[in-house]
Amino acid sequence: MFCIFGKVFYIYVLKIVLLGAGNVATHLGQAWVEAGYDVAQVYSRTPESAAYLGEKLHCHYTHLPQKVSLDADVYVFSLKDNSYKDVLDKLNWKSKLLLHTSGSLDLDILEAYSTHIGVIYPLQTFTKEKSVDLGHTPFLLEAKHDTDLKIIRQLASAISDNILNISSQQRAILHVAAVISCNFVNFMYSSAEKILLDNNLNFNLLRPLIFETAQKVMSESPSLVQTGPARRGDTTVIQNHLNLLQKYPELQQLYEDLSQQIVVSFQQENIPNNDKL
Amino acid sequence: MFCIFGKVFYIYVLKIVLLGAGNVATHLGQAWVEAGYDVAQVYSRTPESAAYLGEKLHCHYTHLPQKVSLDADVYVFSLKDNSYKDVLDKLNWKSKLLLHTSGSLDLDILEAYSTHIGVIYPLQTFTKEKSVDLGHTPFLLEAKHDTDLKIIRQLASAISDNILNISSQQRAILHVAAVISCNFVNFMYSSAEKILLDNNLNFNLLRPLIFETAQKVMSESPSLVQTGPARRGDTTVIQNHLNLLQKYPELQQLYEDLSQQIVVSFQQENIPNNDKL
Repeated sequence: MFCIFGKVFYIYVLKIVLLGAGNVATHLGQAWVEAGYDVAQVYSRTPESAAYLGEKLHCHYTHLPQKVSLDADVYVFSLKDNSYKDVLDKLNWKSKLLLHTSGSLDLDILEAYSTHIGVIYPLQTFTKEKSVDLGHTPFLLEAKHDTDLKIIRQLASAISDNILNISSQQRAILHVAAVISCNFVNFMYSSAEKILLDNNLNFNLLRPLIFETAQKVMSESPSLVQTGPARRGDTTVIQNHLNLLQKYPELQQLYEDLSQQIVVSFQQENIPNNDKL
Repeated sequence: MFCIFGKVFYIYVLKIVLLGAGNVATHLGQAWVEAGYDVAQVYSRTPESAAYLGEKLHCHYTHLPQKVSLDADVYVFSLKDNSYKDVLDKLNWKSKLLLHTSGSLDLDILEAYSTHIGVIYPLQTFTKEKSVDLGHTPFLLEAKHDTDLKIIRQLASAISDNILNISSQQRAILHVAAVISCNFVNFMYSSAEKILLDNNLNFNLLRPLIFETAQKVMSESPSLVQTGPARRGDTTVIQNHLNLLQKYPELQQLYEDLSQQIVVSFQQENIPNNDKL
């Protein structure tokens, strides 16, 4: 409590409990601690994970749902999608603010447990031991009540300058798009790496190309910068590549399907071709 | 000519003719001019393209193969794969050094035209009006004779610090890998953009994720940082996503195939999963 010009102010720091000790919980927890929030406790089903993150954040930790402290303000769930119910069912959350961080779950999954529910979904790919720039990561928010949304917005803006309210339906679409442009993209990288290694070529050779390909769509629309044999309708090169991929039947099929889709989509749109791989 | 300690030195600047005025010719030409090489002439089948690049590089230009100057040292062909023969057939190249810049063509295609032949293949994606960091771009070289390789190496090292000699067979493999990790990746970006736009969501929301996904494999092996529902074997999310993609049958099929391939390849390799999208 402190006074300025005869008025009394209370500084109240939100008390947070993290449920989950995976990559999302780790990154959010660290960011909130750095921003001065009181991360009071970590719960994880796995004792080692609970201890690891609890010690990292200098807070209490437990692997027993019944030991989750009920005197915090906000409960942030970052669990596997199919583990939420297990934990939620175990406690009487009364009217606590319950948030989940999942791209694929509706807000509604929290409805049976509290009147104060919301979503704080950071649209990013997290790897535990790798720091990631959360400052510009989109945080996609949803809540039933405006007062709850205000608190969620405060929590998000302590981490990022890129905050947006969206519905569960929009979040589901974004999650599909994220899988396509992140997980499937990484699978492409990994498939390319595999055929290079089999031919004694170093994946390093592709890194500048991969970086430039991503860099290019930071300012351009990807549909305007598509390049390559399929984009040029170069059936000779496509056929040569399919022959080269004979040892990899799944990848060969994928190459054929994707080339076909690129050919068709650019035939339809009739966008001029000024590019070259 | 100049003398130091009584010895006579000649400064001889290699004279280069560019055949082609597309993205590769433009970027290489500019880099060589900046490095002090004498880019003497540009040929392009299209008069406007020849003029555009010729004026940009302050050199002669022509759209007539018979007007290509035969007093240069090096002829660098950056044409569409199926246009090489047209131009090569039109002149008597004698023993000039002929180089092509294609990832998909064998060195042999030049064999009938000169005894001095080679390849200088920059493994990068080029867009005409966008500058690209060529300084670390892999330049993949091949030649029949060591003396020619020396000249090609000199030309490449004027542009990049990342130079490697590889065979036509290895270059073909690298080209397939480049299509997969660049062209197919961009098609993923573009597919994601499409479904976002259809749902009034801005592609900007995906940009930090796309950047981080590429950034991550700059230091890591992609097979070790695969994330997402298929990686986790989360069939519920995969099924929800397939339902959401019902309006896009090709993309839906692609989602299913790719998820299946990811599931199978990680089941086989039994790599632990520590990641989350």
